[in-house]
Amino acid sequence: MLKKYEVRYFLIAGGNDSMDTALQMHKLARSSGYELFSVGVPKTVDNDLRVTDHCPGYGSVARYWAISGRDAGRDTDAIYHPDTVKILETMGRDTGWITAAAGLACEAGDDAPQLVYVPEIPFDQEQFLGDVDRVYRKLGRVVIAVCEGLKDKSGEFVTASGRKTDTDSFGHKQLGGVGDVLCDLIAEKLGLKSRFDKPGTIQRMAMVCASEVDREEAYQVGKQAVRLALAGRSGVMVTIERQPGAEYRVAYGTGDLTEIANLRKDLPREFMNAAGNHVSQAFLDYARPLAGGPLPPYVRLKKVAVPKR
Amino acid sequence: MLKKYEVRYFLIAGGNDSMDTALQMHKLARSSGYELFSVGVPKTVDNDLRVTDHCPGYGSVARYWAISGRDAGRDTDAIYHPDTVKILETMGRDTGWITAAAGLACEAGDDAPQLVYVPEIPFDQEQFLGDVDRVYRKLGRVVIAVCEGLKDKSGEFVTASGRKTDTDSFGHKQLGGVGDVLCDLIAEKLGLKSRFDKPGTIQRMAMVCASEVDREEAYQVGKQAVRLALAGRSGVMVTIERQPGAEYRVAYGTGDLTEIANLRKDLPREFMNAAGNHVSQAFLDYARPLAGGPLPPYVRLKKVAVPKR
Repeated sequence: MLKKYEVRYFLIAGGNDSMDTALQMHKLARSSGYELFSVGVPKTVDNDLRVTDHCPGYGSVARYWAISGRDAGRDTDAIYHPDTVKILETMGRDTGWITAAAGLACEAGDDAPQLVYVPEIPFDQEQFLGDVDRVYRKLGRVVIAVCEGLKDKSGEFVTASGRKTDTDSFGHKQLGGVGDVLCDLIAEKLGLKSRFDKPGTIQRMAMVCASEVDREEAYQVGKQAVRLALAGRSGVMVTIERQPGAEYRVAYGTGDLTEIANLRKDLPREFMNAAGNHVSQAFLDYARPLAGGPLPPYVRLKKVAVPKR
Repeated sequence: MLKKYEVRYFLIAGGNDSMDTALQMHKLARSSGYELFSVGVPKTVDNDLRVTDHCPGYGSVARYWAISGRDAGRDTDAIYHPDTVKILETMGRDTGWITAAAGLACEAGDDAPQLVYVPEIPFDQEQFLGDVDRVYRKLGRVVIAVCEGLKDKSGEFVTASGRKTDTDSFGHKQLGGVGDVLCDLIAEKLGLKSRFDKPGTIQRMAMVCASEVDREEAYQVGKQAVRLALAGRSGVMVTIERQPGAEYRVAYGTGDLTEIANLRKDLPREFMNAAGNHVSQAFLDYARPLAGGPLPPYVRLKKVAVPKR
């Protein structure tokens, strides 16, 4: 098809699968002696491409969760008597990059979410219930960020293994989301009322939460890809390289698609705390600049108690 | 307690229950001869208080859904091959005001959501499947807004009655949300892949989607309540009265709490279309001014096909 239309440039934006497509096109063209310049453009909210520091799309979903996590916290602060435990279910089938971003909502000690769980750390039901119980006893309310792809020690999705009945009497599999499963668990084991928020695809499309840093970088990687293709490069992906120093600055480089396609970058262990139930300072330092400028300000009332009579 | 601290003004912001509290306080004070000025301040995303044209809070949740509904539509347009059917699950235990607001996302003929279902119209499984199938055949993708409080003809919540197994082998009730139930139904009966977005409490707290009209009116009803109390009124709620004319203007009035407390204003039938599966122009005319200024603009690419060779 490319030959028929004399297409010489193949630029594709996406995640692991798209980078594999770029690589296959590059190889196919080389092996068949057709002159084609195939360049990958990173773009995935999952942020799981190797070689590049981060991927366009991630900064905006990070901002979405920074804002929504804080919103959920304020809401729970206000009316935690009827809604005691709130679960935020984020995207991420294999990695916890998106879930960790909810940690950006914490600007002071007890801010929401108080607990964060990612798929890179196997889910342990006992530890989870202990964590929730501890936060509840301290604050009287709990906000929890969980990844849709949470897995237990045996590598099973929590969505599947948490169900008592995976198959109903008609033979249909009943797969609740992880939020649903954890709400059931909390109700059953701790007797606490909980509900879950699962903004699903809204989190990756909420233009009102787009990070200006992310928008700019998304534009620049596209521009860079065109430059590379015109310069005769092929089999590469544009990368974002974070520059050393206190101020956030990036440069654009290239990575070899053979080191990227079909591979995956997990959330590093040091981006989570020792207990594995919240993000670390290292993660905050990494993610904060990507999420753009400061979050919109909120008014919080000072609660002034009247002297007792 | 009020006597002990010599409190003479009781102002409470909220929905039906709060208005009932305001009314009970008023009655109790009157019957016990204590001078108290009890005034209700409307504030509920549910928008189901009587006498007032609308309630502060609703304009912002309406704006949230106008924006999120459109986001979901753009996302589905872009990648409908893997994600064919998207269900947006909105708040609303009894009324469809919030769900209907997703209809504001439709600015052109086939915009998302293509289908809208509210609790005031009993849910009919056959009609629903027929509606989804029809839209799918036409567009190849479907976005559906549904209310968490959808009920069938017998008044049962769809969340409960849609489950094959309401009780598992351990005797625990398995209650999925309506989004979950409808996804199962669509997969089973139509063989289409679907997923649901359920932003839960995020919808009522997303300050980035707050409507400026709503913010201003929320401030004004509070101010008005103080004025009424100081003028010696009691047993009343501040109301918002929409003024006649093409341009949106309101005045603030009062309603008797006996006509408001513990009562409910359903979404009028004429705010839905004849088939009961989408909003009507009358609803759009009612809700659009409340959701504030125009939605943020989106770029849409013109898809220019290359001539066939």
